[in-house]
Amino acid sequence: MVATFSRRAAELRASEVRELLKMAASRHIISFGAGRPPDECLPIAELSVAVTRVLAEHGVEALQYSTTEGCEALRAAVAARMRDRLGINVSPSSVLVTTGSQQGIDLTGRVFLDEGDAVFCESPTYLAALNALRTWRPRFVEVPSDDDGMIVSELETRLATTARPKLIYVIPDFQNPSGRTWSLARRLELIEVASHRGIPIVEDSPYAELRFEGEGVPPIKALDRSGLVIFMSTFSKILSPGLRVGWLTAEEGILQKYVLAKQSCDLHTPTLNQLLVATYLSLFDIERHIEEVRHECRRRRDAMVRALGREFGEAAACRPPQGGLFLWVELPPGTSARDLLCAALRHDVAFPPGDAFFPNGGHANTLRLAFSDSPPERIDEGIRRLAQAFREVRDVASRGVQQAATA
Amino acid sequence: MVATFSRRAAELRASEVRELLKMAASRHIISFGAGRPPDECLPIAELSVAVTRVLAEHGVEALQYSTTEGCEALRAAVAARMRDRLGINVSPSSVLVTTGSQQGIDLTGRVFLDEGDAVFCESPTYLAALNALRTWRPRFVEVPSDDDGMIVSELETRLATTARPKLIYVIPDFQNPSGRTWSLARRLELIEVASHRGIPIVEDSPYAELRFEGEGVPPIKALDRSGLVIFMSTFSKILSPGLRVGWLTAEEGILQKYVLAKQSCDLHTPTLNQLLVATYLSLFDIERHIEEVRHECRRRRDAMVRALGREFGEAAACRPPQGGLFLWVELPPGTSARDLLCAALRHDVAFPPGDAFFPNGGHANTLRLAFSDSPPERIDEGIRRLAQAFREVRDVASRGVQQAATA
Repeated sequence: MVATFSRRAAELRASEVRELLKMAASRHIISFGAGRPPDECLPIAELSVAVTRVLAEHGVEALQYSTTEGCEALRAAVAARMRDRLGINVSPSSVLVTTGSQQGIDLTGRVFLDEGDAVFCESPTYLAALNALRTWRPRFVEVPSDDDGMIVSELETRLATTARPKLIYVIPDFQNPSGRTWSLARRLELIEVASHRGIPIVEDSPYAELRFEGEGVPPIKALDRSGLVIFMSTFSKILSPGLRVGWLTAEEGILQKYVLAKQSCDLHTPTLNQLLVATYLSLFDIERHIEEVRHECRRRRDAMVRALGREFGEAAACRPPQGGLFLWVELPPGTSARDLLCAALRHDVAFPPGDAFFPNGGHANTLRLAFSDSPPERIDEGIRRLAQAFREVRDVASRGVQQAATA
Repeated sequence: MVATFSRRAAELRASEVRELLKMAASRHIISFGAGRPPDECLPIAELSVAVTRVLAEHGVEALQYSTTEGCEALRAAVAARMRDRLGINVSPSSVLVTTGSQQGIDLTGRVFLDEGDAVFCESPTYLAALNALRTWRPRFVEVPSDDDGMIVSELETRLATTARPKLIYVIPDFQNPSGRTWSLARRLELIEVASHRGIPIVEDSPYAELRFEGEGVPPIKALDRSGLVIFMSTFSKILSPGLRVGWLTAEEGILQKYVLAKQSCDLHTPTLNQLLVATYLSLFDIERHIEEVRHECRRRRDAMVRALGREFGEAAACRPPQGGLFLWVELPPGTSARDLLCAALRHDVAFPPGDAFFPNGGHANTLRLAFSDSPPERIDEGIRRLAQAFREVRDVASRGVQQAATA
């Protein structure tokens, strides 16, 4: 066999988060790896009622091919929810149903990126977005970010000095991996800077509806007048990830390109799944359901923050997010989260090291912990084991330092 | 708004087949456009039983994230069916579940194609494959084909004289759009020529199980010893297209690249859909179901062949395929199938003109008619209207010739 791969395939790396998930699935380990909604919150009975209804009333439609744009009923329901819950006013015809919002990210690369184009992103940013966009061989420009989000003045400098600026990719609410939420001021600044230069903004927003406390901030899309914001979201965190139903909305000329790109990828998102979500939304109260998810995620966040304080003390710095699924942890400088992962796996605990979330690497002492996927007692046990692994790694490191000092 | 698209997106064309399907969905026209399995054959009741069972017994698994490779139960069932029905001996771990086999084609581009690489294909070939592969900006090399399939000696000549030969894409059974099936001899020759040069073969095989009559020919994958054949198929034609569940199998090194590429596209195919198909296969007799689909498709093929003979006489040349969903029609030289489509739409009939299926165009007098999507009486009416449109187009053309002659 001598088949040669494309350059992009030759360079393709396995996503550590996905490999961890595989490991966690095949062994009985406590995984803080995946941003899964709580198992206990999945509305199995309601979805069973809804799918039976879909097949009884729209069986042929559900099982046949449909159009790439998506089913009318779902596009209408999504547009209505965006208006009511997020303040985004768009018509159903401006909604494209995607196979999870991961597909939205991949389509973004197709639609916008030629090799060598510059993509501006937060530092750190979502690993699987980096991997998806790498397919198109762009250059990633990390923009310094703080607790209020991307520092837009830093973006402006980089836009002015970078060749072929093409796209700005941001996750403004409960960011993956940092958990941070952008301030209103930063959102407004971003729109201004991007419209000045005509650079599209991809607003990846899977977590915005999982706010536990504090005041919500409007999506960038809701503030935009430029038509440059592509907003994408998903039912994965608020209903079920296994259905793979997401959506995006954009100005018409841009949306048409996304539709054509999606045609090539999978023709359309499964019809059954689209009608299932639409029917669920018509039969049940998703807002009450999301309230339950929020409540459970909040309990888990609290448990993890408490456990980290108890087990790590000053050694683990984290700023509890006001929502979402992730806690970002900084260990003392010099600690390697990859070494910690190796030790943790021996204790049957898994998590993604933070350096993977930086396009240009570095930040070896950081890690992302998903609190959503484990009940509090499992979080307690997992963090206890993680602290044990941390002590082992620290002892080895300090022995190394001692040996070096006495050598 | 001044966003600039990627070069590939700027060139992106709408698939005529999909646009027709949209038109057919929005108006009450008789469409011979889409290769849909018969509505009447969709096993709605059985799938309803199966999905209820899935949610009752594996609700959390069905609604959560899963691994990119696919669910074990489905991969095992697919491997067993490939062995039993197609003579392809592979382990479940060699199966990648895809979001329809359209995704398999798209992933092929990701894994193998750099800009300017040469893709060798039949003439004509599947339109949506061309569109998907165009994303990667290859050159298409059409290889002359006859009733026995691709003429492999012609392929050999072109492989020897074309820069950067990279991939051979074929549909050996009941080809889309021509309906033709490759002979065993051609399949063996293809493997020999491809292995000599180490060029991967993509065997796109969605229709092989829809044989109405005659002796089946083994898939190229079943004859291969080189490890160069990537075999892809789908449940779309034999069970339900709306579920978007397909699969592919390839040698391990190649499969791994497909898995990584798929991760970026949609993380994984919907878990619910995968478990639904696996459970359907365990509870019901899909072979009996496929027999029903075959029976109904055969009735429809017969109806269309009869109607074409009755309405067009000598003017429409077609060779009835022994299976599949499509009939390929040649009209008298000088006829434009695109003009015919315009006239046919005024009579509420739709079909894709044949020239779209040739990478380099030409063959303006050909068209593809899907017989699977309409019951016999609707086929009769549709072909009657199509013949009416044909007479109108012919009359206009001959008036044009007369005017030119008398001018």
